[in-house]
Amino acid sequence: MASPVNPPRGMRDFLPADKARREHALGVIREVYRAHGFDEIETPVVEDYARLHAGLGGDNEKLSFSILKRGIRPEQLRGAVEAGDPEQLADLGLRFDLTVPLTRFYASHRAELPPVFRAIQIAPVWRAERPQKGRYRQFVQADIDIIGEPGLLAEIELITATSQALAALGLEGCVIRVNDRRILFGLLAHCGFAPDQHDRALITVDKLDKIGAAGVVDELRGIDEAAALRMGEVLAAAEPALESGGGIPLTREAIAAVLPAGAAESGIESLAELGSALEGGLPEGVTVRFDPTLVRGMGYYTGTIFEVAHPGSGSSVGGGGRYDGMIGRFLGQDVPAVGFSIGFERVVDLIELPEDDGPDAIALVYDRDAAFEDLAALKRELVARGHRVRLEKRQKNMKALLERVAAQGFGRVANVRAGERDADALDLRELAAV
Amino acid sequence: MASPVNPPRGMRDFLPADKARREHALGVIREVYRAHGFDEIETPVVEDYARLHAGLGGDNEKLSFSILKRGIRPEQLRGAVEAGDPEQLADLGLRFDLTVPLTRFYASHRAELPPVFRAIQIAPVWRAERPQKGRYRQFVQADIDIIGEPGLLAEIELITATSQALAALGLEGCVIRVNDRRILFGLLAHCGFAPDQHDRALITVDKLDKIGAAGVVDELRGIDEAAALRMGEVLAAAEPALESGGGIPLTREAIAAVLPAGAAESGIESLAELGSALEGGLPEGVTVRFDPTLVRGMGYYTGTIFEVAHPGSGSSVGGGGRYDGMIGRFLGQDVPAVGFSIGFERVVDLIELPEDDGPDAIALVYDRDAAFEDLAALKRELVARGHRVRLEKRQKNMKALLERVAAQGFGRVANVRAGERDADALDLRELAAV
Repeated sequence: MASPVNPPRGMRDFLPADKARREHALGVIREVYRAHGFDEIETPVVEDYARLHAGLGGDNEKLSFSILKRGIRPEQLRGAVEAGDPEQLADLGLRFDLTVPLTRFYASHRAELPPVFRAIQIAPVWRAERPQKGRYRQFVQADIDIIGEPGLLAEIELITATSQALAALGLEGCVIRVNDRRILFGLLAHCGFAPDQHDRALITVDKLDKIGAAGVVDELRGIDEAAALRMGEVLAAAEPALESGGGIPLTREAIAAVLPAGAAESGIESLAELGSALEGGLPEGVTVRFDPTLVRGMGYYTGTIFEVAHPGSGSSVGGGGRYDGMIGRFLGQDVPAVGFSIGFERVVDLIELPEDDGPDAIALVYDRDAAFEDLAALKRELVARGHRVRLEKRQKNMKALLERVAAQGFGRVANVRAGERDADALDLRELAAV
Repeated sequence: MASPVNPPRGMRDFLPADKARREHALGVIREVYRAHGFDEIETPVVEDYARLHAGLGGDNEKLSFSILKRGIRPEQLRGAVEAGDPEQLADLGLRFDLTVPLTRFYASHRAELPPVFRAIQIAPVWRAERPQKGRYRQFVQADIDIIGEPGLLAEIELITATSQALAALGLEGCVIRVNDRRILFGLLAHCGFAPDQHDRALITVDKLDKIGAAGVVDELRGIDEAAALRMGEVLAAAEPALESGGGIPLTREAIAAVLPAGAAESGIESLAELGSALEGGLPEGVTVRFDPTLVRGMGYYTGTIFEVAHPGSGSSVGGGGRYDGMIGRFLGQDVPAVGFSIGFERVVDLIELPEDDGPDAIALVYDRDAAFEDLAALKRELVARGHRVRLEKRQKNMKALLERVAAQGFGRVANVRAGERDADALDLRELAAV
């Protein structure tokens, strides 16, 4: 049974150890992204209701938390009843991703931003999903986006920076799977799907992980029987290379070898150039591989798409792609854009970050007869010398107290004698040795 | 007219320079608080609707943003219409302060926390106030609270840590005005107000800044004519000392001198002890002064209260106090608590923080014929050497480009020749000299 003092369903409190761990990880990511020339921005957590329901968020739109208008008039309430639509009473909503706010931000501030804008956004988003293990209703995303660069340089910078961030966090064995929407559309055309069937067919191909190749072909039959069978052949041809331990390298030869000849030339060209530029440039423990079956859910991707897998996580720890058409919706002119998002909650569960303040953190244990004035003076002096200082009242079970402060990262302890206010006279002992 | 791409009413986007400034200031505050032995925690931005409307938030409860229940059934909608109460459709709300969530957090996690818990919360809160200059609907508060310490040591630690944080931010001339609810209640009793008139009388005294002593006495007359006149004498007796440049020091003599004899002994005792412990312990540029007219709006304060004024700001830049009864509401037993909140938005407007990455930040200007591969390799190498690196495509107006990257904090620039991928061969020039 839910206790009345629990946080809202599907959301979490973070205790000091968790919070320190999270802030440390966010600091690592932020620092790498800044080094790679990106600039951090922030938008409000809420956006206009209409913007959150403009069709850019895919299924996430349905999961958005809506905010009630202030000062609703009775006729508005009656109107909502008559329409059977309570959402008429909402004018704002909590953002469900950082991409919709970013496109709105860019449209709003374009004149103040450089021609090629490299954005960092590290912030929470909200989705009213059914809570389950590892899935929360408030969670943090760490996104970088490059807006205004049509060339592959943007993809190269994003993949390099994200790889470095994952490596700096100590994540090893990451595989970045890469594909290009132009290859997917080329394959669909090659198989014989009509252009107006492409979106539907892609949704089916995206289920490959869940229903397998046979399941995909079966479902595609509902769209076009002959094309579905041809797609089955394409999948079968790629399967051995995908299943092999090494995956498919991002080289022209390896990519072309698993695709039917003549399908999707421009996509192959682009991925080969990307692979060549990344060659030797990724940190140890990160590899890039071609995956012709990678789709990524969102409808707005137009070119390169990518997704990061890690052996320790069942689902992806990051992903993104090029979405050249999306910002144009707000501006009336197309602006090229590409983004890469780290799934922070999954990453933070995978990493080991010792949160230990060490010998610089000092616990001062005082008795009931100690004067507050003296304690304040001692603490002030030690803080001024660069220490983190915690005052602790002596308790009966001193062993428990010392274990607790050691677990909280304090490396040294001193007993404060009554009347003592000279920091140099303290008997500081290593906590490990107590 | 509002543009369709603006952030929601009363809320703000932060561009890179603003965001960097804010993050820097937050980092300074966080570091000081951690050094003083506080631990950072985090709670979800939303809390249960009922908790946000339990009477702990004063007027702020009315300003809370409410979140529509998901999957509202038609009969719920009809029920809300019949009751004329759209809020029946809300089950959650955005927090309007960090104190209500903290008390809920403490009640939920008490068993996992130390007996005296020193909490840091640095996070946004939301209030649907009428937007006006310097007042926003989403704004950040930086709070520290000490839960579980009944003695003055808690006040001493909070005031010392907050003063140090303000000093570390470079704020000079801060005055912390201090009072004690027990002094206020003692004064009211001394003047002849009955206990059940105290809350109402305090609300009036709190208006002193706006309506002056005569206005306060006038309004108090509506409660008790004779008591109002006596309160007028008390205010008149304190006025010269309050108006004098130096204010009233936090010493027994100075405090007693402005209060009627015999009123509020325990409060005077406590403030004098606080003043003595803080003596010589505050950073230069911060002073503590007694103010018998300080009330602080919230009803939950029980002892010491304080508020920080700064000559550069018309309203307070921080405040807090002891609220010993509040957590008991969730736990069924009283837990002593005291908190100090920095009004981050006001502080960040007052400080000067040079956001300059200096010579370590390098802009690489490349031509159209540069190979992405080479640019990526150069950037990687410079990042690995500890630089922040920005790639910039050459443009016709190079003067504008250089001015822009200099304004963004880049201290050096190099032109990348086609084919160049040796970082040592770059001709790096100081941007100031270009």
